Amino acid sequence: MPRFTDPSAIAMVAVALLFGSRAATLEEPRDLLPAADRLSPLPVAAVTIRDGFWAPRLEVNRTKTLDHVLEEIEGTGGLKNFDIAAGKATGTFGGPFWADSDVYKWLEGASWTLATHPDPALDAKVDGIIARIAAAQQPDGYLDTFVQINVPDLKFKNFAFFHEDFSSGHLFEAGVAHFQATGKKTLLTVATRMADVFDREFGPGKKDYIPGHEGIELALVKLARATGDKRYFELAKAMLERRGQKPSIFEGQFKQLDANRTVDFLGKPLRIGEWYERFYLKDPKHFDTRYAQDHLPVREQKEAVGHAVRAMFLYCGMADVVNETGDAGMWSASKALHDSVTLHRMYVTGGIGPSEANEGFTADYDLPNENAYQETCASAAMVLWNHRLFNVSGDAKYTDVMEQSLYNAVAAGVSLTGDLFCYATPLASRGDFKRSPWFGVPCCPTTIARFLPSLGQYIYSRSSDGVWVNLFIASEATTTVDSGKVTLQQTTKYPWDGDVTIAVQPDAPSEFTLHVRLPGWASKPTLRVNGAAVTPKIVRGYAAIRRQWKSGDTVNLTLPMDVQRLAAHPSVLQAQGKIAVRRGPMIYAFEQADNAVPLRDVALPSAATFKTALDPALAGGVVKLTTEGVQRDAANWDGLLYQPITPAPAPKRVPLTAVPYAIWGNRGLGDMVVWIDASR
Amino acid sequence: MPRFTDPSAIAMVAVALLFGSRAATLEEPRDLLPAADRLSPLPVAAVTIRDGFWAPRLEVNRTKTLDHVLEEIEGTGGLKNFDIAAGKATGTFGGPFWADSDVYKWLEGASWTLATHPDPALDAKVDGIIARIAAAQQPDGYLDTFVQINVPDLKFKNFAFFHEDFSSGHLFEAGVAHFQATGKKTLLTVATRMADVFDREFGPGKKDYIPGHEGIELALVKLARATGDKRYFELAKAMLERRGQKPSIFEGQFKQLDANRTVDFLGKPLRIGEWYERFYLKDPKHFDTRYAQDHLPVREQKEAVGHAVRAMFLYCGMADVVNETGDAGMWSASKALHDSVTLHRMYVTGGIGPSEANEGFTADYDLPNENAYQETCASAAMVLWNHRLFNVSGDAKYTDVMEQSLYNAVAAGVSLTGDLFCYATPLASRGDFKRSPWFGVPCCPTTIARFLPSLGQYIYSRSSDGVWVNLFIASEATTTVDSGKVTLQQTTKYPWDGDVTIAVQPDAPSEFTLHVRLPGWASKPTLRVNGAAVTPKIVRGYAAIRRQWKSGDTVNLTLPMDVQRLAAHPSVLQAQGKIAVRRGPMIYAFEQADNAVPLRDVALPSAATFKTALDPALAGGVVKLTTEGVQRDAANWDGLLYQPITPAPAPKRVPLTAVPYAIWGNRGLGDMVVWIDASR
Repeated sequence: MPRFTDPSAIAMVAVALLFGSRAATLEEPRDLLPAADRLSPLPVAAVTIRDGFWAPRLEVNRTKTLDHVLEEIEGTGGLKNFDIAAGKATGTFGGPFWADSDVYKWLEGASWTLATHPDPALDAKVDGIIARIAAAQQPDGYLDTFVQINVPDLKFKNFAFFHEDFSSGHLFEAGVAHFQATGKKTLLTVATRMADVFDREFGPGKKDYIPGHEGIELALVKLARATGDKRYFELAKAMLERRGQKPSIFEGQFKQLDANRTVDFLGKPLRIGEWYERFYLKDPKHFDTRYAQDHLPVREQKEAVGHAVRAMFLYCGMADVVNETGDAGMWSASKALHDSVTLHRMYVTGGIGPSEANEGFTADYDLPNENAYQETCASAAMVLWNHRLFNVSGDAKYTDVMEQSLYNAVAAGVSLTGDLFCYATPLASRGDFKRSPWFGVPCCPTTIARFLPSLGQYIYSRSSDGVWVNLFIASEATTTVDSGKVTLQQTTKYPWDGDVTIAVQPDAPSEFTLHVRLPGWASKPTLRVNGAAVTPKIVRGYAAIRRQWKSGDTVNLTLPMDVQRLAAHPSVLQAQGKIAVRRGPMIYAFEQADNAVPLRDVALPSAATFKTALDPALAGGVVKLTTEGVQRDAANWDGLLYQPITPAPAPKRVPLTAVPYAIWGNRGLGDMVVWIDASR
Repeated sequence: MPRFTDPSAIAMVAVALLFGSRAATLEEPRDLLPAADRLSPLPVAAVTIRDGFWAPRLEVNRTKTLDHVLEEIEGTGGLKNFDIAAGKATGTFGGPFWADSDVYKWLEGASWTLATHPDPALDAKVDGIIARIAAAQQPDGYLDTFVQINVPDLKFKNFAFFHEDFSSGHLFEAGVAHFQATGKKTLLTVATRMADVFDREFGPGKKDYIPGHEGIELALVKLARATGDKRYFELAKAMLERRGQKPSIFEGQFKQLDANRTVDFLGKPLRIGEWYERFYLKDPKHFDTRYAQDHLPVREQKEAVGHAVRAMFLYCGMADVVNETGDAGMWSASKALHDSVTLHRMYVTGGIGPSEANEGFTADYDLPNENAYQETCASAAMVLWNHRLFNVSGDAKYTDVMEQSLYNAVAAGVSLTGDLFCYATPLASRGDFKRSPWFGVPCCPTTIARFLPSLGQYIYSRSSDGVWVNLFIASEATTTVDSGKVTLQQTTKYPWDGDVTIAVQPDAPSEFTLHVRLPGWASKPTLRVNGAAVTPKIVRGYAAIRRQWKSGDTVNLTLPMDVQRLAAHPSVLQAQGKIAVRRGPMIYAFEQADNAVPLRDVALPSAATFKTALDPALAGGVVKLTTEGVQRDAANWDGLLYQPITPAPAPKRVPLTAVPYAIWGNRGLGDMVVWIDASR
C-alpha cells in the first residue's frame, strides 16, 4: 500500500513515513514484518466508537473530564504561565517544572475529541489557548515557560530533571493531533519551531543531549511523519543512540551545575542537587542512571528498570526507530525488554511499576498489591508501547497486552464520573483508597484526558494486504484497500459477551485479507463467514481471512467467555496461594460493597465455579460474577494478632461477588482485593 | 522493700525512686501494682549470664562489636567532633546531627560491659573518651557538638529535628550506666550539667519544650533515680505533659525558623524546611505532628503512630511516670497503646514499624514481609517499653512480648560475627538482603552495642515480697530479700529445651515468694519444687511460689516445646493463607541454604508435623526443624507470568527445613520466608 512522504498529501491520516533506510529488508530479523508489510493504525477520525463500555467513558471524557482538567490547570496557573512568559501578565510560575506539558496534553485530548466530535466552542477554546502558547514562544523558537520565567540562564542545562524535553514532546504530539484533527497548523508550527531549536542545538553531530524524562523521541517521530521532515526522525534516533555513555551525559552536566542553588518546585525551593542525590547518587561514590534508563546503550538494555513512564516512552521511541529502519539491535532489545516487563514485572491488570520510591520498576516478581504504585500514566504508556510493537510485528501477543492494560489498569485510572483519578492504582485496599480530583503532579488526569479520545486508533489497522481487527469494540471504521474504500461495522457487547459481528462493506468487491485477532486468553474461538464456519490460517494470533469481500459479508467471531481462575508465577510472593479471576479481557476484583462477609475473612475454593449476570444498574451495565466462598476459620481473634492454627470446623460457605477491576472504587470506601486467598 | 532516696546510698544498684506523689495508692488503677509492690530489675552487675544462646553473643559484642563500632564512629569523625567543639582540633563536623548520641551509646555499652567484665584497658579507653566529651562541654553546661560547631545560633531553636534532646538522653543514660558500672561520676557530672541546662531553660513553668526525638524523658527519670534529684523527674514529666498542644510547639517554632537556610547533613546541605515538609507538612495547609507523637496529649493517645523508635521512647517515659506517680491517665493510655501495637501493628517476631517512609507505623494490620522496615532500634525499644510496663504491673503479658522481641527481632539485628547489622529487618527475602557493617545513620549498630551488655537486668526482678524469674537464661544472680542475700542459679538449655532448673540459695532460710513466669506460648507448663509437683497460685502469668526457702532448694520448670503453626489475624493481608512456625519463644524462618527445593515453589501443609534436632555446627548450636512440604503445581511457568489454574497432579512431597529467624542471613545470600504459604 502507498505510504506518504509529501506533507501536502497526508492531511488527516496518521501514517508511518518511509525513509530510505527501510530498504534493507533482507537483513531484518525474521519476526519483524518486512518494511512494506508493517501496520498503520486507522486514524482516530476514521473510527466511530459505539460500544457500551467505552462510548460512555469517551462521552464523559468529552463532556466532563476536559472541562474539569482545564479548570484545574487554570487554577494552578498552567495557562497563565504562558502569558507571563509572553510578557503579557505578571506573577509567579505555577505548577511543577513541567506544567506546560499538562496544557499540551489537554490540547491533544481536545484535538482528538474534535476529530470525532466537531464542536465550534471547543475548537475556539483550543484556538485561544494555542494563541497564548504561540505568544510565549521566543523569537528563536525556544518555549518552556518554567525555564523562561524562573531560570532563563539554565536553558538546556539540567537535562536530568528540567522537563524541557518531556514538555516539548507533548507539544509536538499535541501539534500533530491538532493538525490531524482540524487541519490547522497553528500549534504544529509552534511545535516545529521548538523542534528546530532542539535540532540546531542537539541534532546529529551536534551537542550531546539525552532526555531526562523520555517522550520527546516518540514525539519527534510523530512530527517527522506528520511533516515529512526527516530531521526530526534523525534527531530522535540520535537521542536514543546517545544513551548509556560512561560517564553519563547527566553526570557531566550535573558537575556543571550549582547543586546548592534552589529552584521553585510547587511553591517551595528545591535544591538542584537534591533530586540528583535521590535518584542518581544514592551511593554518593557512584552515579547510577538506571532511574532514567541511561545505564546502558539502548540496544544493550534487556531489563526494564527505573521510572516506569520514562521507560515506556523510551521503548516507544525505540519501536518507532525499528518501524522506520528495521534496526535489528533495537528490535532485539525491544523484545527482551518486553519479556522483562510482561514475564517478570507486570501486574495481572497490565499495569507496571510497583514502587512509589522511583515511580517504577523494582525486582523481578516484586508485585505488591496493597501499595502497588501502578501509575495510570504508565498503564496508558503500556498501550502506546505494545501498539508500536504490534505495528512492526503483526503479533497478537502485543495486542493482548495492550488490551489487558486498557481494560483493566487504564480503565481503573479514572472514576465513572470522569473527574476523579488514580495516580497510584492499588490491587488491594483496606478501605482507605479513593481517587482524587487533582494532584500536585497532575500528569495522570491529563494522561486520561488525552488518551481516551485517541482510543479509536487502536481498534483497527491497515497493512499492505488488508485490514486488521485488533480490539472488539462496537464501532464503525472506514479505510481504503487497493480497490477503494471499505467500511467495517463491528457489533458486539464485548467485553461482557464474546460474540462479535463484523460487517465488511467494500465500495466494490475486492480481494484482501481481514486479519481478526484471536485473544490469547480465549481457549477456543470460532469464526464464521456469512454463517459458515471457517478455519483460516492463523498467523501470530490473528486469523487471516483472505477472500473476495463484497458488501453484505459478515464475519462472526465467538469467544468463549468462561470465568478463569488465574495463578501467578510462584516467584510472585505477594500472590502466592492466591487466585485472580478473569473473564474475557476483564480482571475482576472483590469489593466490600458487594459482599456481606468481611473480605478479609473469606477465601475462594480452588475449584470455585462462577455464575455470571449482567447488572444493568452498575456502572452502565457490567457482568458481575457470583460464587461461593469459604468464611475462614471461626477462630476467635478477639485480643489476638497471632495464634496457633486450630483444626477448622466445617467451613462455612458464603456468597461472594466480584466486579470488574475497571470499575472498582466507584461506590465509596471499602475493602478490595484482586488476588483473593485460596481456601485450603 | 526499701527504696533509696539518698544518692549516697545507691551506688551500684539500679532502683526506682519513690517520690511523694506515689502515696496516692488508693486512687490508682487496679491493674497497676500498688506503689510499694512495683518491681525493680536486678542490676546488670548482679547477673552473670552463662547460657548457650546469649553468652556467646555477649562475648562477641564485648570482643568484636564494641571495637568495630568505635572504629566506625571514629572513621566518621564522631569523636573528633568533641575535640573541635572543645577548640582542640580543627575540621568539619562529621556524621548526622545526632552523631554525639552514637558516642554516648557506645559508652553505655562499654559501661555495662565493664559492669560484668572488669577490663582495665576498656576502662581507660572509656575514661579517655569521657575526658574529651567533658572538654567540649560549654561553661554553662550546654553540650551538643553539632550545634556548637555548625549552628551555634540555633541552640534549642529547632526542636523538631535537631537532636539535642535525643543525644542528651543518651548522654544521661550513659552517665548513669558508667556511674553504676564503675562508681565514677565523671560522665554522670557531664550529664547532670547538661540536664541542668534543660531544667533551667525548660523546667516546669519555664519555656515550653517538647523533644522532637523522644528519649530524653526516660533518661531524665534514670538520672533522677541515680542522683535522687527530683527536678529531673519533674522536667521529664513536664516534657510529656506538654505534648499535643494546638498549635503544636513544633509548628510555632518552625515559623520562627528560616526554612530556606541549609545545614550540613552527612556532608550535604539540608534545607531546614525540607524535613518539616516531609514529615509535618505533607499537606501544606495542615501541620501534622503524628510523626513525633505530638498529635494529642499523651494521656489521650490510644493508637501507636509515627516514627516507631520515637514512639517507643515516649511510651517508656510515660511508663516511668506511671511507675513514679501511679498516673491513671498515662497508665490507661499506656495500655491502649500496648493493645494498639501488639494486637494490630506488631510483627510475629516482636518487631514494629513496617514502613521506611516514616520509619514507623502505618495502619492496623499492615505488616508487609519483603519490605518490612522493622528497625533494630525499634525492636530493642520494644524490650525497654515492655520491661517498664511489666515493672508496674507484674503482668507476664509484657514479659511475653519482651521475650518475643528479644529472641527474634532484636537477635536478628546483628550477625553472629558481631560486625554486621540490620537497620531494616525484613521477614522475607528474595536473596538480595544482607546486613551492613555501618550506615550513614548508624543508630542500629550502636543500639546493639549498648543493648546486649545490659541484658542481665531483664532476667530477674525484685519486689516487696520476693524475687521474679522473667526470662529463662542460664545465669547466676544475687540479690537481697528481707532476711538477707539470696543467690539464684538458673540452669537451662533454653530456648532449645524447655527444662529450666532454678537453684535457690538464701544465705539463711527465709520466707519469700519466687515468682516464675509461665510463658503465654507454653500450653501446659509444669513446676516442681525439690522434685515434687506444685500448683502454686498463678497471678498475671507468674507462678507465685511462697515458702520458706533454704539453701539447696530447687525449682524445676518444664515448658513443652511443641512446634506450633501460627496464623495471623485475617486482616493481616500479607499473611493470609500463610503459616509461621514457632517453637518455644523462637520464630522460625525457611532459608534457601537449608532447602534444595526453591522456597518460592514450596508450600506447607496445614497439618504439617515437625521433627526437631539440635544442629551443633550451626550458629553455635540451634534447633532446626524439619518437615515435609509440598512442591507446588508442576505447571510449566516457562514464558508465563499468569496462567489459569490447572488441576494439580499428585502433590510432590519434599523435605523442608527451618531455622530460627534470629540467625537468618548468616550464610550468604538466599531466599528466606517467615510466613510460608500453606498448601491447599
